[in-house]
Amino acid sequence: MMTLNETHDPALESWVPSANAADTDFPIQNLPFGVFVGKGGAGPGRIGVAIGDQVLDLAALRETGLLSADAAAAVSCAGDPDLNRLMDIDSADLAALRLALSRLLRRDGRDTERVAACLRPASSVTLQMPVRVGNFTDFYTSIHHAITAGQLMRPGGTLAPNFRHLPIAYHGRASSIVVDGTECRRPSGQIRPAVDADPIYAPTARLDFEAEVGFLIRRGNRLGESIALSDAPAHVFGLCLVNDWSARDIQSWEAQPLGPFLGKSFMTTMSAWIVTLEALAPFRCAAAGRGTDGPALLPYLDDPADRAYGGLDIRLAVTLQVPAADRRSMVRRQIAKLEFATQYWTIFQMLAHHTSNGCNLKTGDLLASGTVSSGTAPEAAGCLFELCRNGKEPVRMDDGIVRTFLQDGDELSITARCERPGVRAIGFGQCSGRIVGAR
Amino acid sequence: MMTLNETHDPALESWVPSANAADTDFPIQNLPFGVFVGKGGAGPGRIGVAIGDQVLDLAALRETGLLSADAAAAVSCAGDPDLNRLMDIDSADLAALRLALSRLLRRDGRDTERVAACLRPASSVTLQMPVRVGNFTDFYTSIHHAITAGQLMRPGGTLAPNFRHLPIAYHGRASSIVVDGTECRRPSGQIRPAVDADPIYAPTARLDFEAEVGFLIRRGNRLGESIALSDAPAHVFGLCLVNDWSARDIQSWEAQPLGPFLGKSFMTTMSAWIVTLEALAPFRCAAAGRGTDGPALLPYLDDPADRAYGGLDIRLAVTLQVPAADRRSMVRRQIAKLEFATQYWTIFQMLAHHTSNGCNLKTGDLLASGTVSSGTAPEAAGCLFELCRNGKEPVRMDDGIVRTFLQDGDELSITARCERPGVRAIGFGQCSGRIVGAR
Repeated sequence: MMTLNETHDPALESWVPSANAADTDFPIQNLPFGVFVGKGGAGPGRIGVAIGDQVLDLAALRETGLLSADAAAAVSCAGDPDLNRLMDIDSADLAALRLALSRLLRRDGRDTERVAACLRPASSVTLQMPVRVGNFTDFYTSIHHAITAGQLMRPGGTLAPNFRHLPIAYHGRASSIVVDGTECRRPSGQIRPAVDADPIYAPTARLDFEAEVGFLIRRGNRLGESIALSDAPAHVFGLCLVNDWSARDIQSWEAQPLGPFLGKSFMTTMSAWIVTLEALAPFRCAAAGRGTDGPALLPYLDDPADRAYGGLDIRLAVTLQVPAADRRSMVRRQIAKLEFATQYWTIFQMLAHHTSNGCNLKTGDLLASGTVSSGTAPEAAGCLFELCRNGKEPVRMDDGIVRTFLQDGDELSITARCERPGVRAIGFGQCSGRIVGAR
Repeated sequence: MMTLNETHDPALESWVPSANAADTDFPIQNLPFGVFVGKGGAGPGRIGVAIGDQVLDLAALRETGLLSADAAAAVSCAGDPDLNRLMDIDSADLAALRLALSRLLRRDGRDTERVAACLRPASSVTLQMPVRVGNFTDFYTSIHHAITAGQLMRPGGTLAPNFRHLPIAYHGRASSIVVDGTECRRPSGQIRPAVDADPIYAPTARLDFEAEVGFLIRRGNRLGESIALSDAPAHVFGLCLVNDWSARDIQSWEAQPLGPFLGKSFMTTMSAWIVTLEALAPFRCAAAGRGTDGPALLPYLDDPADRAYGGLDIRLAVTLQVPAADRRSMVRRQIAKLEFATQYWTIFQMLAHHTSNGCNLKTGDLLASGTVSSGTAPEAAGCLFELCRNGKEPVRMDDGIVRTFLQDGDELSITARCERPGVRAIGFGQCSGRIVGAR
């Protein structure tokens, strides 16, 4: 389950020079999948693999005949406009594709000129939604977020009694998931200006982000059947970053008794590159986020391998850019650093719980962690509501600018890296969006 | 908007004799759409139109060349395995198809022998999911349900303060929507046997139904744009019945703070025939369900036409069948009669509210009303939780059998009719399912 293979070898280098830069997100050990079109172009997307500052066109590579027979199942999906069919092939075939790509892109690879002809500079393409997301589920698995948000929402608020027993979640909206870089239009909605006031319909005044980690389902399960926790990793294709944009004022008025709805469904952004679970194998870690003082887990949420390797050592960074006072330039500040390994529940527990009632997951479904907050300090909080203590402690940017919630023209970007001693670091690219004014 | 045309003429009769029976759901004034395969058969589905006890095969009818040129756009979708593309054609083309079908099936229709060759006895086909449902949203729009359920859940519970200001809703699970007749497997999940007890993982002991009316989106809206209430009817293709099966014990433990999740997502059943909004035109009525004592509506939820015609006079009936004491026969009782016109919000207000934040609806999305409860009497309640006052007042069947929640082997069926003086009555077929034991 935690097997490392030659594709993870930290000594591997690529003949693509930019892939060997220490700070690239996409060394040869990563090889994430995405979908691209020509710059600003329309037309059907093409599956690409990121390598340094280049994108390998999988359909073009197929035409060369250089993909080995082992990767034949993957090759049959190479011309698709999204990753859905590719995500559903046998895991051995996926591994064969990754191995074939790794060998072709290595410094000692064969036919490098013919492979090089299949590369496109990343700057010359536009990344699209990599996946047709059929269903979206958003969890709530950071105990730091749950405690702090609970206290901020209600004086004396405590952790929900179910939090330590199950990964809380809600069904999200799939239709409004967009790819990194899509502008976020400020939503309007019903807002109650004060507790005793009548609601108004107005643009949200409390637009927030939520920094999350998402994962995409490879092969699902049949309705009425469950996926055991020990089998859960086999159902995960890969991971991405997610920003679950939130309108806190719309959300707080609508959310009782059935949970978030329009305060969330106006848009959710996901990063363009899907980092495979195989690429993340060196960064699996103990599921330490729930500590040792919680209640005993029910058997369907407990598994020795999950305890030992269910965690993922991913560090997220959140950067806010706001227009400077002169409106001609942007002021930029990293406002949060988050550790995904501190989540109370693992992604595999989320998946097992999701199917514990027989609910069928499908290829291309997106599940996300909920806000990643990894401590009590403001800069360890994955949303502004928590970071600014519900508006009381503004984020101070340079140039005298402060923010409690997002303003039109602001740009919010989430990035993530995996870095461990003795392992080649990999990254996720970015999940960003700029706020545009309400219609 | 409320125009009636020759397809609604109550004097129309069909040369299909069963379509003229007083109690048929499918007279020539209805003409609902569905998807069928041969009995028990696999293979791609075929679009059908219900007429009496027959199903008209739309692809076969196309081959005859009898569909007029006016219906050409619809004809191009006749060979599809679901209704999604057909639902997205121009409304004028949809109306032309309905008119052409009405004329071909009338007692004085032409080429009746060639049309008759395209009929299949309903008893010889199996109905399938008529639509690929991309997104599912479930509302909570019965004030009777909201008041009674609130009181049953919490002593002194009152109506949520937002209920009279907006149609409350939550995102549902699309993947587990199934068609009428699919068995419902009793789900397992985390359940807390008592308030202070540790949760266990076990089959639900409180399996319930929720009788609802659903509606399917014809053409959607772009992300970031809204649909005005006055335009909402143009975006509705048709209506169906929905049973939002619910596991009350799973639901009550998981649902704070983010709403229902696994207590609902194990299965949702929809009826197989989609009754078009055009067929329902004679049954539009005043939106009287919210009475006159509520707060003023915000402008985006208020429209004169919606007030005058936004309601729908649909009467639902819920029938429970349980195994008799000798297990050899079934005991059957109608346990509830519900009036959809009593809902506080119209389906058009639900649609306008759903897009008020710019959330994009897509062709094939399913929106549902939430439990239809139309009064304070138990038999006016659309779920067992309310009908049996949370287990305190069992439903008494014949044969000494009682029920507070559904048992294995029970079958729950929802039907609906529209009946008004001077108008030909139409119906919805059924939305039913039998409970099978937990895995």
